[in-house]
Amino acid sequence: MIAATVKVIAFDADDTLWVNEPLFRKAEERFCSLMEDFLPTEQSERLLYEMEMRNLGIYGYGIKPFTLSLIEAAIEFSNGKVPNTIIQELIRQGKQMLEEPVTVIDGIEKVLQDLSKKYRLVVATKGDLLDQERKLIKSGLSHYFHHIEVMSDKTEQHYKRLIQHLDSTPEEFLMIGNSLKSDIVPVLNIGAYAIHVPFHTTWIHEMVDEEVIHPNFKSIHKATELYS
Amino acid sequence: MIAATVKVIAFDADDTLWVNEPLFRKAEERFCSLMEDFLPTEQSERLLYEMEMRNLGIYGYGIKPFTLSLIEAAIEFSNGKVPNTIIQELIRQGKQMLEEPVTVIDGIEKVLQDLSKKYRLVVATKGDLLDQERKLIKSGLSHYFHHIEVMSDKTEQHYKRLIQHLDSTPEEFLMIGNSLKSDIVPVLNIGAYAIHVPFHTTWIHEMVDEEVIHPNFKSIHKATELYS
Repeated sequence: MIAATVKVIAFDADDTLWVNEPLFRKAEERFCSLMEDFLPTEQSERLLYEMEMRNLGIYGYGIKPFTLSLIEAAIEFSNGKVPNTIIQELIRQGKQMLEEPVTVIDGIEKVLQDLSKKYRLVVATKGDLLDQERKLIKSGLSHYFHHIEVMSDKTEQHYKRLIQHLDSTPEEFLMIGNSLKSDIVPVLNIGAYAIHVPFHTTWIHEMVDEEVIHPNFKSIHKATELYS
Repeated sequence: MIAATVKVIAFDADDTLWVNEPLFRKAEERFCSLMEDFLPTEQSERLLYEMEMRNLGIYGYGIKPFTLSLIEAAIEFSNGKVPNTIIQELIRQGKQMLEEPVTVIDGIEKVLQDLSKKYRLVVATKGDLLDQERKLIKSGLSHYFHHIEVMSDKTEQHYKRLIQHLDSTPEEFLMIGNSLKSDIVPVLNIGAYAIHVPFHTTWIHEMVDEEVIHPNFKSIHKATELYS
């Protein structure tokens, strides 16, 4: 399953090690229901996604950017009529998301136990440094990892820098993650290895259209297949 | 000036490499003036600082946490009466801060030019990864640095991890920064070296009461003294 040259395995965090996307989907549903007096749910959903995409370049990923986008959206979608109580509720929801307990994905701990005996493991994640460090600690998985790399984005350039930073080479580097766009395609493009472990919920922004076919690529159904 | 054992020099970023704190002070003044109909400026200032401290643990450092705190404060200080236009203005101000051009501090480039010939230089900063990476690029100083380390906080523990991460030792590590609390005291406490270069504006949160006296410590007036 894992190429003989591999020495370092990087795991994506959100929806690879622990559950994340469903928390955002739940928060979006709550937002749409709070906005029902102003806009039908379907329209709120679509416009909110557009707003998040507009803000992504300037805000980056994570719960704080998401919360700021929700507040901006609430004001815009209501034509400036949204009551302060709803904005307060969005701030409260954001804080709750930041303090949410971490749900480790089934079978992951056994996989890490197994792989950490043979490989140097790191976490390679987008998002907010403080938030991701906190989740790693709450997950109880931190002792399996050499360290956590929080990347401002996951492009080829970012992976090249990460591999250089790890004093490694593409042939020695395997990335495991749930997003074809962020965890797989750029990694294959720089000559490293990638294994895709899909998660049931994927943010539209992380989706890719084409099927991935590449000699350095595998797709599995569950992380537990990694050691079986 | 620099101990003979030093091999790695870490520079704080905000208000050491480039101007930062004045942007926050200006934004706070703008906030207080927007809130004048609800609360006298002096009270706004004090209550806002309290709100930022309450939120620091959950939000961390940076412009996005600051903006979220301003919005929460605006609603609370106005007893839920703040108009949406003011909240919109706070969001707009936050985005403007994120896009602000970077003003490099006088003389820093010459210092980096000089030191990079003899030492491995890194940036060691709190705050937001995306934002700090962006500022480093905008500053035009990035080629002097081996890499940027964004730390979720600057405690002794965080510095120990940083030095380990750099495959270095405390005797080989010198930190240069403007905050006694974040850049100097924890670094001295773990046996490394520190040089303080004060900046004219310091956030109250970053102040320490006592005078620092330590064999591994120096305080200078301007970064340019580093190579003179």
